[in-house]
Amino acid sequence: MPATQIRLNARPKGKTDASTWKITHDAPPPVKDGEIAVAVEYVSVDPAMRGWLNDVKSYVPPVGIGEVMRASGAGRVTESKASGFAIGDAVMGQTGVQSHCVGAAAAFSKADTKLAPLPAFLSGFGLTGMTAYFGLKEVGQIKTGETVVISAAAGAVGSMAGQIARNLGCRVVGIAGDAEKCRLAVEEFGYDACIDYRAGSVSQGLKEHCPKGIDVYFDNVGGKILENCLNALAMHARVVLCGAISQYNAEGERTGPSNYMQLLVARARMEGFVVIDYRPQFPGAIKQLATWRDEGKFTMREHIVNGLDQFGTALNMLFTGENKGKLIIKV
Amino acid sequence: MPATQIRLNARPKGKTDASTWKITHDAPPPVKDGEIAVAVEYVSVDPAMRGWLNDVKSYVPPVGIGEVMRASGAGRVTESKASGFAIGDAVMGQTGVQSHCVGAAAAFSKADTKLAPLPAFLSGFGLTGMTAYFGLKEVGQIKTGETVVISAAAGAVGSMAGQIARNLGCRVVGIAGDAEKCRLAVEEFGYDACIDYRAGSVSQGLKEHCPKGIDVYFDNVGGKILENCLNALAMHARVVLCGAISQYNAEGERTGPSNYMQLLVARARMEGFVVIDYRPQFPGAIKQLATWRDEGKFTMREHIVNGLDQFGTALNMLFTGENKGKLIIKV
Repeated sequence: MPATQIRLNARPKGKTDASTWKITHDAPPPVKDGEIAVAVEYVSVDPAMRGWLNDVKSYVPPVGIGEVMRASGAGRVTESKASGFAIGDAVMGQTGVQSHCVGAAAAFSKADTKLAPLPAFLSGFGLTGMTAYFGLKEVGQIKTGETVVISAAAGAVGSMAGQIARNLGCRVVGIAGDAEKCRLAVEEFGYDACIDYRAGSVSQGLKEHCPKGIDVYFDNVGGKILENCLNALAMHARVVLCGAISQYNAEGERTGPSNYMQLLVARARMEGFVVIDYRPQFPGAIKQLATWRDEGKFTMREHIVNGLDQFGTALNMLFTGENKGKLIIKV
Repeated sequence: MPATQIRLNARPKGKTDASTWKITHDAPPPVKDGEIAVAVEYVSVDPAMRGWLNDVKSYVPPVGIGEVMRASGAGRVTESKASGFAIGDAVMGQTGVQSHCVGAAAAFSKADTKLAPLPAFLSGFGLTGMTAYFGLKEVGQIKTGETVVISAAAGAVGSMAGQIARNLGCRVVGIAGDAEKCRLAVEEFGYDACIDYRAGSVSQGLKEHCPKGIDVYFDNVGGKILENCLNALAMHARVVLCGAISQYNAEGERTGPSNYMQLLVARARMEGFVVIDYRPQFPGAIKQLATWRDEGKFTMREHIVNGLDQFGTALNMLFTGENKGKLIIKV
């Protein structure tokens, strides 16, 4: 197979389409000192990617026109000029959406495939699981016995957050967009209850399922649901801003929660985070998740799409809610 | 003088006017066990009062139609059926806007008039100063060397917050609504710089005066200025929600900061608080402020209006920005 890259062709307005992307078959560059070459086997497809396409300041710079699309990926080392990496090592890191990558070894870490097969390191044992874990534990500061609400409950991050919160002894209430997702949340992902926001009032559901209010709200969506949750906070609640999927495709002015002063009423905080800041703590977290997995208390669900050329289609699936579990492309 | 009460006559839409209030001259009720009677000498006039007039859930219930307007006040005990309070004691607490009050002793604390005259306990040594102190120290977690931005910089809370932040070793930048307030902020209240939001771009001013970004933003106003500050946050910044004076009079839908996801970009938090939660820690804070005052590093500026019947006029002064310093009514 020739080396293949998916590059940004033109900045999208609203949803991405075929014109957003360009496929190239350039040979990978030579490996320099401190770098490794990786044959990429899996590429992660994440909601944050949509934000990287906009020409605005964010926690990372936007992807440039003509550049290989930024992505996490996993694969095996094919050449190494960096200490600590040998040919054949399984690694995860910033590969981009491409079949072969060459990059600084510092942007990669080794994947212990004795713990799980490679796709797991783009899912529960990768940034998705780490986002759920550190978002709840470090930012949300969840404590045993608290009520935790998680939106996009059956999504990639949400499905893991639900299990982690349950394993840490919390009452866990999900919010999701259809009956099937709500069923999955409760039956597979450890939620005590899940509110279908298309079937009824979220406020009513929160009243019913969180009679003592929300201690931690893990926000994956923003918009109206964030406002509903702000109105239902318990005293000293924490709102964890993980993403705002309802906002990524929005053109023009974004909207903030009009009732943000509920943070004052509830003496509560709202806090954003970026998971890579916690990279040094990843090994300990992966060990905890693997232990729970071995005890039957943590499952990961991956939705694998075949072929790099399906990247654009796969990315849009995130926003229509078609994916079931962490979306990954098999190269 | 007969006992006088200012009562809520009708809920205002937007600004309050004469029809909002009703003056009565009812005799105070008898003092029950656990209560004290207080001859009120000073009443505090605060922006939060406007919120209490709306029929919406907040951190305290709204003032009912016909009820005495809620207020902090200070005066002297005239009768006591509570241990720890004797006739003649100077006290501060929830007096309401009236000349004589009877209430649970638990809602009052003694004012040490050896430290300062009585109005100070509605100003720097009262909830206003305590709001600045605990908002910065406990909620904002300010640290020596950080850059602190404070809106309504020359207002009651802002003028104290500026001095406290400076005394704690921070670089302090204010935002205020005219050149005179900016001059006061810098010359009297210890600000390193003050941005006049009516004279130019706040964003530009923040770029100039906070080249390393804002570590703590103490928000007294909400609205556009909150958005400007969110765009200028340093990594791991804290936004302290003290009030939203731009929102109190707003009819209909309030607006949230459209760029609240800057909290994610900056890994920052936004947190609300209510100062009375810190009441057990007030004595220590008052002692610290008194020490600074004695060292010439903390001044309080009170704007005293004579007569309970001027309450409605005084309240509106807060929203037109006419007051210079903490607004207090002398009964």
